[in-house]
Order: sequence, then C-alpha cells, then structure tokens
Amino acid sequence: MDPLSGPPRARLLNALDRLSQTHSVLDIGINALLAEAGVAKASLYDHFGSKDALIVAWLDERQQRWFGWFHAHLAAEAPDAEPAHEIEAAFGFLEAWLERADFSGCPFISVQLQVKDPAHPAVQKARAYADRLHEFFRSRLVRLGARGSLATTLLELYLGTIVVRQLDVGTHPALTARRTAATLVRRATRRATRPPA
Amino acid sequence: MDPLSGPPRARLLNALDRLSQTHSVLDIGINALLAEAGVAKASLYDHFGSKDALIVAWLDERQQRWFGWFHAHLAAEAPDAEPAHEIEAAFGFLEAWLERADFSGCPFISVQLQVKDPAHPAVQKARAYADRLHEFFRSRLVRLGARGSLATTLLELYLGTIVVRQLDVGTHPALTARRTAATLVRRATRRATRPPA
Repeated sequence: MDPLSGPPRARLLNALDRLSQTHSVLDIGINALLAEAGVAKASLYDHFGSKDALIVAWLDERQQRWFGWFHAHLAAEAPDAEPAHEIEAAFGFLEAWLERADFSGCPFISVQLQVKDPAHPAVQKARAYADRLHEFFRSRLVRLGARGSLATTLLELYLGTIVVRQLDVGTHPALTARRTAATLVRRATRRATRPPA
Repeated sequence: MDPLSGPPRARLLNALDRLSQTHSVLDIGINALLAEAGVAKASLYDHFGSKDALIVAWLDERQQRWFGWFHAHLAAEAPDAEPAHEIEAAFGFLEAWLERADFSGCPFISVQLQVKDPAHPAVQKARAYADRLHEFFRSRLVRLGARGSLATTLLELYLGTIVVRQLDVGTHPALTARRTAATLVRRATRRATRPPA
C-alpha cells in the first residue's frame, strides 16, 4: 500500500507508525509528522484534535494489532487451548517478535517510561496493555490451579526480556525467558496438583 | 545542602537530577535547566560542552551512586559474601528501592528506550549499567557452580520488575521477583551440586 494514499486519518496514523521506528513518538514534531503524512495541519486537528490524541489512537491501533498477532500465534501453537501450552506459546511469540529484523521496541513500555505524568492518556494506554497481558497470564494460571500471583512474575519476565533485548545485553534473552516461564509454570502446577500430605 | 550553592558544574548536575524526577531528561529544555541551576549558558558549555554531555555525566554519577547503595546493601544483608545470599540481597535492594516514596523510575532504562540511536553516548551508558548488573549475577552464579546463562533471566526479572512497578500492574512486584530469583538460584545450584548419576 502506498503510505501516501488513503484518507488523511490513516495517513497520519501510518506516518506516526513509520516515524516511531526511529524516533520516540513524544519527540516527533508536528511539522515532521505532517510532512511524513503529506497532509495539512487542519487534517490533524479535524481528525484527532491534538498530537497527543493521535498518539493515543496510534497506541490503540498498535495494541489491537499486537494482540491480534499474539492470539493468532496462540491459535497456531496451542490449538488445544491448554493453559500451560498457551503460556508457553505466549513466550514463543515474544521470541519470534524480538527476532524480527524490524523489531523496534515496545511502544507501550517506551511511552510509559517517557511520560512522567501518570494521568496522561498515553500512560493509561500503556497500563491497559500491561493489564491485559497480566490478565492473560492470571486467567491461565487459575485454570491450572496455580497461584495467580505468578502472573506478576511472568509479566516481569516478559517485559524485562523486551528491555534486555533493547539493551542488547545477555545471551538469547527470549529463549531463556521461555524456558524459565515453562519451568515456573510446571513447578506451580505440580505443587497445585500434589495431593495433601 | 542548598541546591543553588556550590560550583556551577555540581549545580547543573543537581538541577538535571531534580528535573529528572518529573521530566524525561531528553525533553528538558536548556533554558529550563539553566533556570533550575541558576547558572549562565556559558557555564553549561564551559563545563560540559553540550546538554548531551551533561546527560552522560549525570548518568555516570547516577550509576556510581546506584552501585554505591547497591553494594552497601549487599555488605549489610550478605556480610558473608556467599553468592546466593548476595543475589538474594540484590533483589532485596530492588524491593527497598521500588518502595521508596521518591522512586521515580530507572534513568538507564528510560533513556535507553527513548533514544533510538544505539550509538548515542547515553545509550552506551545505559548498556554499561545493564552489563555491570548482568556481570554481577553471572559471576555469583559461576561461583555457585550454576550455569551463567541464568544471569540473563535474573537481569530480565530485575529490569522487568522496575517496568512493572512503574506501570503499577500486578501485586507486590518486587517481593514476587525476589522469591522467584531465590527459587531459580536454589534450583540451579541443586542441579549443579547433584552428583553425576
């Protein structure tokens, strides 16, 4: 698709998405954005009202797209929908994502760490993304009879792996995380299913 | 100490440190910085050459200070310098740090995620911080006879806990991380010391 074709709303979202590969979204100037989108300033304000509102719409779109990929991967790798298989597939998805040549970081973590105001709508979106991932882990652990608090650990491992990959430290960060997650889930499940002494 | 006393170099570093509590350091304008420090623009250029160089000097100072606290905590909580105790104390330090009322995030993670250029000196500093923490874990694991690759997992857990705390998701993120780290280290050590079958 020609990025400069289509309605102005989509062109603005696509322009922000392209620029986000090389710039922090909060640092992108309005003029650079308009030039990249090939639209007039009035279009930005007509469609979004502000650059912040465009960022929020972009984060919404990224989140929908990300969870779309995520669930498609799960359906392919854990077709039985068995909770432990689904958690392992979630970490397999992380591995595939981090190894992509066009991996450019997680916009939710980046935005959240950059905006210091917790009431900023972009921070709310970042939190919604993390909450949804946390709830994914929690619900699977509960179905396995394991303690739900392990969901926090799995989320730490998941998001920490993204950071470690971006910092380019350590060895095979996603592979290591996948194996550790599988161990922790197995261990928690064994404990949960062990008959009382 | 009066933040507006002392030599201009220290005042600039202190001003950046204060502003970093509420702003992303890369977004802080030079005029706001000079006003906060109460120094003239010439002082900034005389002492640092550029705002970027000031940020790098500030990251250096933060790293020294952070590892100073870190090692003081280790000396107090693991005076025997036993590697497993030291790793547990490192996660205990994380817990104490994240619970501080003035916790305002990890500048190394924040800077790294904001600057997309891997050659930027601030990114090099962020990587140096993560490398040093990775090496801390790796050297202790090796002394325990465990596989060094677990250091990557512990680093993921450590940095992921900071992100989860900043996103304010999950329950007791640092406590959970500390317990998981202890479990992983114990498990890796048991395997390492088990006699060959």
